[in-house]
Amino acid sequence: MIYLTRRERFSAAHRIFKPEWTDEENQKVFGKCSNLNWHGHNYVLYITVKGDQSRNNGFVINIDILKKIIKERIIEKIDHKNLNLDVDFLEGLITTTENLAIAIWNEIKSPIEKEGAVLECVKIEETENNSIEYYG
Amino acid sequence: MIYLTRRERFSAAHRIFKPEWTDEENQKVFGKCSNLNWHGHNYVLYITVKGDQSRNNGFVINIDILKKIIKERIIEKIDHKNLNLDVDFLEGLITTTENLAIAIWNEIKSPIEKEGAVLECVKIEETENNSIEYYG
Amino acid sequence: MIYLTRRERFSAAHRIFKPEWTDEENQKVFGKCSNLNWHGHNYVLYITVKGDQSRNNGFVINIDILKKIIKERIIEKIDHKNLNLDVDFLEGLITTTENLAIAIWNEIKSPIEKEGAVLECVKIEETENNSIEYYG
Amino acid sequence: MIYLTRRERFSAAHRIFKPEWTDEENQKVFGKCSNLNWHGHNYVLYITVKGDQSRNNGFVINIDILKKIIKERIIEKIDHKNLNLDVDFLEGLITTTENLAIAIWNEIKSPIEKEGAVLECVKIEETENNSIEYYG
Amino acid sequence: MIYLTRRERFSAAHRIFKPEWTDEENQKVFGKCSNLNWHGHNYVLYITVKGDQSRNNGFVINIDILKKIIKERIIEKIDHKNLNLDVDFLEGLITTTENLAIAIWNEIKSPIEKEGAVLECVKIEETENNSIEYYG
Amino acid sequence: MIYLTRRERFSAAHRIFKPEWTDEENQKVFGKCSNLNWHGHNYVLYITVKGDQSRNNGFVINIDILKKIIKERIIEKIDHKNLNLDVDFLEGLITTTENLAIAIWNEIKSPIEKEGAVLECVKIEETENNSIEYYG
Repeated sequence: MIYLTRRERFSAAHRIFKPEWTDEENQKVFGKCSNLNWHGHNYVLYITVKGDQSRNNGFVINIDILKKIIKERIIEKIDHKNLNLDVDFLEGLITTTENLAIAIWNEIKSPIEKEGAVLECVKIEETENNSIEYYG
Repeated sequence: MIYLTRRERFSAAHRIFKPEWTDEENQKVFGKCSNLNWHGHNYVLYITVKGDQSRNNGFVINIDILKKIIKERIIEKIDHKNLNLDVDFLEGLITTTENLAIAIWNEIKSPIEKEGAVLECVKIEETENNSIEYYG
Repeated sequence: MIYLTRRERFSAAHRIFKPEWTDEENQKVFGKCSNLNWHGHNYVLYITVKGDQSRNNGFVINIDILKKIIKERIIEKIDHKNLNLDVDFLEGLITTTENLAIAIWNEIKSPIEKEGAVLECVKIEETENNSIEYYG
Repeated sequence: MIYLTRRERFSAAHRIFKPEWTDEENQKVFGKCSNLNWHGHNYVLYITVKGDQSRNNGFVINIDILKKIIKERIIEKIDHKNLNLDVDFLEGLITTTENLAIAIWNEIKSPIEKEGAVLECVKIEETENNSIEYYG
Repeated sequence: MIYLTRRERFSAAHRIFKPEWTDEENQKVFGKCSNLNWHGHNYVLYITVKGDQSRNNGFVINIDILKKIIKERIIEKIDHKNLNLDVDFLEGLITTTENLAIAIWNEIKSPIEKEGAVLECVKIEETENNSIEYYG
Repeated sequence: MIYLTRRERFSAAHRIFKPEWTDEENQKVFGKCSNLNWHGHNYVLYITVKGDQSRNNGFVINIDILKKIIKERIIEKIDHKNLNLDVDFLEGLITTTENLAIAIWNEIKSPIEKEGAVLECVKIEETENNSIEYYG
């Protein structure tokens, strides 16, 4: 078993809030992340897959296929978008980085498995000081 | 003359558009940066000042005073905010990084001069690949 | 289970030596790290905690609480300090990054557990080329 | 158990191809990585070892010994070299980063064990977006 | 006047040598950079242009046009290539980073001027420790 | 004219204080940087020289000679040292990064000129957020 990690980036707006709460309640619990007019980030996404390089010309996975999966399933849907309003696979979720990582896992797990590799980890850096990892 | 650079960060939402244009025109000229529901960035801000360290205990400027100026005049007003809707000193501007750098220059030039130093450059990185510098 | 990592920084002086050894012995085993008049580093600290985001509004832990624990228990005690002389929780230890990581683990494990999360890893980068990880 | 990671760098040329294939076949499967006249990278290598710091003056391993092992066994043989033509421990291998990581593991495992530590991971970054990890 | 910098990357093989010298002479003057079978780097390229944002919707230059110029004139010709053998605009040059920066300047100066901006600087990082800047 | 920048690193302890002041006065003006038992940093040093590459086989300066000058004149004297106590060329100075940059300039200007290049800038990063540049 050997692990390959691909790094991609996207920029998006979002707001952390619970719709059933008042603005004051959201502000109190989520602070500046709950700004009514949104804020945004340059997210950095790391997708780690594992596999057996000896069966595939020395590669865990064809990197061009992995890039295509990430681009079509994730980047094109969330880059330069509003995570709360524009992204189908995030509908109904509080847009924390935790929930974002789980949602991205669910979008790319099957397509990666169809290529003979296994999804190991979705990591997202929201800022240079905060990051999230999800292993399924 | 010696130069000191202070690095700060802020996260904000914005949208590039001209209000007198239709959505289609904005989309055509500004592309994905004109997404109707906003997008956002982790901006990195570099403020460079110059001065004579020999008159100030070996310092160009008291760094705590410089940090206070940047925090009160800039960061508190734009961090976790919407650059188009929430920031008084950006009102009426297309929120390109170019215009943002010039507006920040205008906000901090006088307060820095009052401390006996000279503002040399405002640099902003919008993404890891795009940055702007303004020298007044 | 999902993992959140918070990055913090501190600058400190230290010296690697065993008090029961002569200066020559210390110099021979620990080299330049045993300089009599100290040296120092910008340490980068990564605290990883794990938890169940589904029980906490989509968050592993309230990040402001985690930041407060790290600040009060660690950063305020070691930032701009001498690790050998100024830090109560390092008393009697050789101040290797290994021992530093274990000592930090012991300081923050309980406070993090009281918040319903689990401490997973303490990682410290001493220089850009050397780092230590401790998992308890 | 505690983990220490040492970071080193090397610059090398290589070409991804199977000698039993035609140039056209190699080009079709491996794309630009199969350029006939080679290309190259600044590789970043991370060697992680684990051990018991309590038996060794607070250190997992004497870092100078670890640096010497990596330098003599790896860096001097592959830095500013051609991975396909100049490196004995890569002979006969397709020079993917996956195969490179496994080959480096095999070169340094024994020397590290002789020092009383255990090799945990070989990680290689080929570009800022692509990296490989091997755990044996 | 305001300055915009675009960052791009390319990976290439090269060898530093003077064809009129023997291998021994090249080895003596250029050291490991003169390895007979090539070596390579991940080069990082920074293109800085200046202009008047007030005449162009708040932009120094349309970033998509600048990216297209850099991609077509430079990246497609040198990425995953051999700088000594594969690149027309480097023919006959010793492939130092200095000469590379000047050659890139000459390739993109006119196309950028045709867009109403001015080329200010070509910067290339060959490794994380060595970089070159050329201002024409 | 073309510019070459070499990056080096060193780790050192220091304390900001004026010997003619009381500890209370030093603490009041210099804050935590005046900690009695020292603190320390990983400093990053950038030396920029300029020259005419056309007279020197395509190089601004022989990089091995530049590295040797920086190593012998600077790094060996300040790496893993106390800037206030151990460094001859800093004697009598308040060890701000400003004064450090000027002192390093004075140490390396002549040796670089003897090699036919011109010293352009000494830049020092004290932390990831604070840096100093000196141009003579």
